[in-house]
Amino acid sequence: MEKTRVAIVGMGTVGTGVARLLLDQGDRTARHAGRTLWLEKIVVRDPSKPRDVDLPAGLLTDNLDEVLQHSEIEVVAQLIGGLEPARTIMLKLLESGKNVVTANKALLAEHGAELFDRARELGRSIAFEGAVAGGIPIVTNIGQCLSANQILSVVGILNGTSNFIVTAMAEQGLSAEEAIAQAQANGYAEADPTMDIDGTDAAQKLAILAHLAFGARVHWSEIPRTGIDQLEPIDLRFADELGYRVKLLGVAQLVDDRVEMHVAPTLIRQGRPLAEVRGAYNAITVVGDAVGRVFYHGLGAGQMPTASAVVADLIDTSVGRTQITFGNLELWSDRTPTTDVRAQRDLPGRYYLRWQVDDRPGVMAKIAGILGEHSVSIASVIQHEAESDDASDVPLVIMTHQTTEGAIGDALAAIHRLPFVRSRAVKMRVLER
Amino acid sequence: MEKTRVAIVGMGTVGTGVARLLLDQGDRTARHAGRTLWLEKIVVRDPSKPRDVDLPAGLLTDNLDEVLQHSEIEVVAQLIGGLEPARTIMLKLLESGKNVVTANKALLAEHGAELFDRARELGRSIAFEGAVAGGIPIVTNIGQCLSANQILSVVGILNGTSNFIVTAMAEQGLSAEEAIAQAQANGYAEADPTMDIDGTDAAQKLAILAHLAFGARVHWSEIPRTGIDQLEPIDLRFADELGYRVKLLGVAQLVDDRVEMHVAPTLIRQGRPLAEVRGAYNAITVVGDAVGRVFYHGLGAGQMPTASAVVADLIDTSVGRTQITFGNLELWSDRTPTTDVRAQRDLPGRYYLRWQVDDRPGVMAKIAGILGEHSVSIASVIQHEAESDDASDVPLVIMTHQTTEGAIGDALAAIHRLPFVRSRAVKMRVLER
Repeated sequence: MEKTRVAIVGMGTVGTGVARLLLDQGDRTARHAGRTLWLEKIVVRDPSKPRDVDLPAGLLTDNLDEVLQHSEIEVVAQLIGGLEPARTIMLKLLESGKNVVTANKALLAEHGAELFDRARELGRSIAFEGAVAGGIPIVTNIGQCLSANQILSVVGILNGTSNFIVTAMAEQGLSAEEAIAQAQANGYAEADPTMDIDGTDAAQKLAILAHLAFGARVHWSEIPRTGIDQLEPIDLRFADELGYRVKLLGVAQLVDDRVEMHVAPTLIRQGRPLAEVRGAYNAITVVGDAVGRVFYHGLGAGQMPTASAVVADLIDTSVGRTQITFGNLELWSDRTPTTDVRAQRDLPGRYYLRWQVDDRPGVMAKIAGILGEHSVSIASVIQHEAESDDASDVPLVIMTHQTTEGAIGDALAAIHRLPFVRSRAVKMRVLER
Repeated sequence: MEKTRVAIVGMGTVGTGVARLLLDQGDRTARHAGRTLWLEKIVVRDPSKPRDVDLPAGLLTDNLDEVLQHSEIEVVAQLIGGLEPARTIMLKLLESGKNVVTANKALLAEHGAELFDRARELGRSIAFEGAVAGGIPIVTNIGQCLSANQILSVVGILNGTSNFIVTAMAEQGLSAEEAIAQAQANGYAEADPTMDIDGTDAAQKLAILAHLAFGARVHWSEIPRTGIDQLEPIDLRFADELGYRVKLLGVAQLVDDRVEMHVAPTLIRQGRPLAEVRGAYNAITVVGDAVGRVFYHGLGAGQMPTASAVVADLIDTSVGRTQITFGNLELWSDRTPTTDVRAQRDLPGRYYLRWQVDDRPGVMAKIAGILGEHSVSIASVIQHEAESDDASDVPLVIMTHQTTEGAIGDALAAIHRLPFVRSRAVKMRVLER
């Protein structure tokens, strides 16, 4: 049987999983690839460090040159996180004639155009199924399986850590801080979970998906984003009362032939598949003009789900499918103009709004009046009696009918100037399609 | 830009959708394929019949030879249903050097080995994403995206018509006959819906999926199957009371390294994704040893969802991905031994059971006693008061803990001999993983 020699650079969690699949499940990969994927080298910083997988002697090295100069290694899984030295290593691998597989979304989101342009110049390929949504094969699904469609929208829960936290807040009534501590205790959040919680990680993944789906070239930092750090349990309770759940969604959609994108906590009607995604799972709804709505749900991270995606890429590259897809899709290029993805004033949507207001007569009428002046129509209202006689302010929740981003912005500015409004409005979009 | 010339044979619902995508969305397919997919010929029985799509002059013909002898047509979408002349046409297309795309599951389920062996001999490929679950790209997902995994189970709602009917029965309290009439009135069921309702269609699709997932070669008629025609509203109500929904599931799973398969109405706990699939949708859960559980949900039939799958196959074939996959996967062959998929006596499972029994003392004790003698442990029981004083028999519902197919079979045979048991037991499996 023919042999494709592969190497791994970086033996963190995912690298260890990939090594395990290649070493322990060689028959399986051979059956699917029609050839043996032979693990030739693993490059690590410290070859003497104990590993969670039994490695044949001579596999580990701390010298990248052993891969770069090994003419028979055709494909390399580059599994180092962060931007540098990952970027430099990736360029060196391409320049030494290797096809590369990676799961490093931050690297692609930051340096995708440079890396892809370089790979094209050199006639090499880059595969990155593991970079988005871990075990859900969404890259191949959008880039290949749904290619007969004009994609209309991609909406996803793209960060398992924040979904674990939001689920714990909603189901156990925890504060964001308490839920984050629980996620850390359970191994679902890192010591510094900032990138998960402030929406950075989701925005990076969304930028990759929007590029695949719409050809939109956008730097992740240009995507308007709101994290879950400011999310309050009270809004999760009101959402529940209204028949909704709150999820941190990444949204990329065509609106009047323009791509609109954002990452933000969003209300989704209970029972809709995205609303019922719990814990550390990821899920993505793709709407195409021919296929309609396709929904994907799976583990968005973790050693073996991500390794599953990386090894599928290694197989695809070893048999030549990746090279075909990579050549045809023309992903990322510094020649592609960047896309403006900001929400325009006329972006349609429904909104959940909450203010803390003085508990006195006329408040509701005044706020409703201002919304009406801006043509914002009210779908439902929640105002409960104050929980104690001492409370001088109470929450007022309003869910709007369809309106526009501009109208809501203007109305909120006017309402904020009212003397009896104690807080800035909590404003969340409601998912409609 | 390079051109791949394609033809369509058969202009039914799906063929019309494929023609529409190729003719109206040429730019899109060119962008994804890196080449133009040029629709050269459409073979139909009656070229003079009016069509739902504007066709350029000269495209239609009733002469298959115009395709067979056209040396520049490389790929043909064979979209005729049924077994003949579909089989003969498919063989002629392969023999004239064409790669073929089809959505005909019955043809593959019946003649897959012959067709695939012939295609391999001739160095041609067959693609069939549209044959299973319409718009859900499950063939590519199992055959390519999840190829790093040993698949452990594939469980799906594979027939939209029967799911529409079961949903209407559960939500509107209709009988099977009433729900079938409603499905027909809404265009979700054909005049003769036998193959949808008796599980044949689901079994044919399951045979294809099990072949992809496990390499199991099984004729669909060997798959134990129960349709929804015998399903009674009363059992849907009891299932609901117990916290479950009933769905017609196709199940293929590894149990002790053996493939077990069946199609049957099955209880699924409410809130689980498969339980919440409503109407004419399809959904599939795949469990892999690396990736864990991946869930897919989408439109299982219909013109444009199926056309989306067929055109994706046309693109994959025109760029060469299909040929790689087809060559490596070695799908179907008369040389592959057939697989025995019958449930063995030791197949584990939980069961829902219902009998109509005399409304008198001691009945419950006697039935529970027999279950106990066969080591079948009871998880829950429902026995309500008789609805009227006239009723001499009442339903008795028992949900078991984990037991085996053999133990349940023996217990039911013994219970059936009891004088106060008025009916054969209704027996449904409960989905566990």
